Parts: sequence; C-alpha cells; structure tokens
Amino acid sequence: MLSKARIKWIKSLEMRKYRLLHNAFLAEGPKLVGELLPYFTPLYVVATKEWLTQNSLLLGAAKEVDEVSQEELERASLLRKPQSVLAVLPMRNTDFKIQDPKSLYLALDGVQDPGNLGTILRIADWFGIRHILCGTEGTADVYNPKCVQSCMGALARVEVHYCNLPEVLKEAQMPIYGTFLDGKDIYQEELSPNGIIVMGNEGNGISEEVAELVSHRLYVPNFPKGSLTTESLNVAVATGIVCAEFRRRS
Amino acid sequence: MLSKARIKWIKSLEMRKYRLLHNAFLAEGPKLVGELLPYFTPLYVVATKEWLTQNSLLLGAAKEVDEVSQEELERASLLRKPQSVLAVLPMRNTDFKIQDPKSLYLALDGVQDPGNLGTILRIADWFGIRHILCGTEGTADVYNPKCVQSCMGALARVEVHYCNLPEVLKEAQMPIYGTFLDGKDIYQEELSPNGIIVMGNEGNGISEEVAELVSHRLYVPNFPKGSLTTESLNVAVATGIVCAEFRRRS
Repeated sequence: MLSKARIKWIKSLEMRKYRLLHNAFLAEGPKLVGELLPYFTPLYVVATKEWLTQNSLLLGAAKEVDEVSQEELERASLLRKPQSVLAVLPMRNTDFKIQDPKSLYLALDGVQDPGNLGTILRIADWFGIRHILCGTEGTADVYNPKCVQSCMGALARVEVHYCNLPEVLKEAQMPIYGTFLDGKDIYQEELSPNGIIVMGNEGNGISEEVAELVSHRLYVPNFPKGSLTTESLNVAVATGIVCAEFRRRS
Repeated sequence: MLSKARIKWIKSLEMRKYRLLHNAFLAEGPKLVGELLPYFTPLYVVATKEWLTQNSLLLGAAKEVDEVSQEELERASLLRKPQSVLAVLPMRNTDFKIQDPKSLYLALDGVQDPGNLGTILRIADWFGIRHILCGTEGTADVYNPKCVQSCMGALARVEVHYCNLPEVLKEAQMPIYGTFLDGKDIYQEELSPNGIIVMGNEGNGISEEVAELVSHRLYVPNFPKGSLTTESLNVAVATGIVCAEFRRRS
C-alpha cells in the first residue's frame, strides 16, 4: 500500500525544483526502467508482483522496493497509460571536467525544447558520443519526465552534465565547432576526430559569449547552394547531420 | 464584426474532416501568412487594420477580407497568443504524378507525428526537394494547424501530396531508396542524383508492402559500427542525414 506522502514525493518529481531538492528523477515502464537500472542505483522501485518476479536480478542494489497492484501503481504514475513499474533514480553528479581530449563531445547552448534534447541524446548515443555538456542557462532539463520517457536507454549510456558552458569551453584544450548561418561549408572543412560540437538555441542559435569561444564555424549547405529556403534546420536535425559527418570521416 | 457562423467555420478547420469538407486549411500570424500568400489564393483573410494597411499588395486575389479589432481576431484564433492576421487557404490538388524523373523526391510511409512531418518539410525545403509523397494510410496531415504553424514558409515551397503510395511507387521509373536496420552502409553505396527516398513510421519503419518496392536498402551506420546503442534515430533526424548525403554527392 502506497502512502499519500509517498505518492506526493513521486509526483513532485515532475517539477524541476523538487528533482533538485531530492536529487532524483522518475522513470516509468518496464522497457525504460529495465534499460536504466543497470546504470543507476535506484532510490525506490514500485512495481507489480509480476514485474518484480521477472526482474529480481535488476534490483540488487535498490534502496527500497514496494510491491503494489496495478491500480495502486496508477495512482502514483505521471503517465496516461501507467505500466507495471516505476523507479526513482538518483541524478548523476554534474561536477564535470573534460578528461579525454581525444573524444568527441556535444555541447548545448540553450536548446530549450525537451523533445529536441531527447532526440539529441539519442543522436549522441547512436554516434558514440558519451558526454553532453549543457549550459545551465536556458537548456532543457534532461530529467524532465517527458524527456526521460522519450530518451529511453540513451539516458543510461550518454551522460548529460549541466555546467557553466563558457567556463568549460575556455578550459578545453581541443577544437570547438559550432554551426552558424555564415559558417564554412562543413563538407569543405577539415574535421578532427576529437573536439566539442556546440549547438545553439532553437530561435537564436549560439549565444555571443559562447560563439567567441568557437574555433571552427561550420555550415550545413542547403541545395542548390544559396537558394531561398527555410531559415534553418531544426536543431536536432542539424545535430544529426553534423555528427554523422564527423563520424563518416573517422 | 465576425459572425458566430464565421468563427465556427474557422475553428472547424482544426479538425481534419472539416478541412476535407471545405478543402481548406488555416494559417495564422503575419510571418507565416506573409510567406504563404504569394503561393496560395486565400479563400478568406481576417486581420487588424494595421496588418491590412501594410500588406494590401498580398491580398490581390483574396476572395474575401474582413478588418477586425485584435479582440475580435482572438475570438476566431486557435493560437494561445493570436497575432494580427489569420487566413483560410485552399488545400492543394493532391492528384499527383511524378513528372520529373531527374529529381529527388521524398515519400513518407506512415510518419504519424505532426511535429516530425513539419520538421521533414523544412528538411525538404532546405535540400531543394520540391515534392513529398505521403501515403494516405497513417501519415500525419500537413494541414493540421500545429503542423502548418511549425512548417512556416516550407509549406509554400514544398508540395505535399497524399496518395496511394504503393501505386505511385510502382509506376515510378526511378531508383527507390529506403532506410532499414539491415540496409547497406549509405556511405559505401552509390546514390543517384534522382530517385525517391522513402521514410517509414516512427515505431515500425517502412511497411512490408512498400518495402518490397524499395530497390536500394540503406542504413546510417552508428559509431563505433555495430555497437550497442539506441534502437534507431528519430525519423526526421534520419531523413536529414540521408538527404544531406544525397545532396553532398550531387
């Protein structure tokens, strides 16, 4: 039986201030929870008997586990169609320094739509990018339940770090790439196998402060070049095209 | 003064069955309406005095125009923040045959999310693809107001045709490309400058019936190749990467 206080605690994780307060986030459904549990030590798992029986191995380090009926689970869920399990997981430590100067990183400077952030997380996962740096100013929160549910297992394999982006970039001893409407044709430029790829806000692109730190200004050419088209590509689509091109060459 | 009947007519266009009944769709806001008017002869425009004064040249062929106060406009609008103009535009004739075998086309086989469809329309516009063929089965409606508002001017330059996709593909005398998890590395394959690129449903990919008509099965490789990652890229991101690669080579 779930207490009212417990349900309130779970549901509070829909809001960022409570996620920060509890240093925790919510994941729901057998597929997602199954993918995340090997990577996070759960603070709390609540599930039906059936799920618990089939997944006992995943629960090794869980701090607390409750078995409930499907009806009870539904009272705690944020989903319209609650499924057999719900887990409260700890947010990752966000104290981050670039440790591998031979790797490729993504940095997001004000990507504000949680849907775009989730899609970018899946792109990073697909292209073997293990760390995403997010400017604390204006970038969506990856631990937002909608983002968590859409990221699926990518959230396990890709670490998202909220940081003072200009400071981290200043200290990085590696090439910094960014896309700009007046950048150079990405297909004509040399791309290094390591570096940081910065993507900017949906409406305003990369901020001035960050733009000054970009060492290589790139552009995905439209077709025919210079024709009158849409003003820009969606930021997740641009991220996909740029990452694909970096990986095509390595 | 807008009559109740007029407001009801405008608002009914939120629903597909009424769009089909009236063969019309809704566009709102000065930027979007300004981009679309040169390409569509409006059935009806309702706007503030200020907008009408500044845009009289755009209204040449409009069948009917009403000047209203901002407050009145808000009563008819579907937007949360209504702007100075709203236009009812005719849907395009969807009777379509491939007329230019030297061109590149996109075909969508069950892309059901209107956000993805809008993003793909902008990709087509960016990469100079003038026609998108949509299977009538399960592909989102580009004239859905949310899609219209997110497509912006791309809807003017890219024509979207709803059709019996398998039939159109059968008659097409050109290469047909599609992406599949067991397809061949796109970077190792020959790509023609003409052809039809088929993209499938968000969850299930390309349908069996359409898959049989695909002559070239492609795959965007993950990195490192064959590693355990996210199951697939978002369909709009995959569309962007594939279109970029076709255009890079032409």
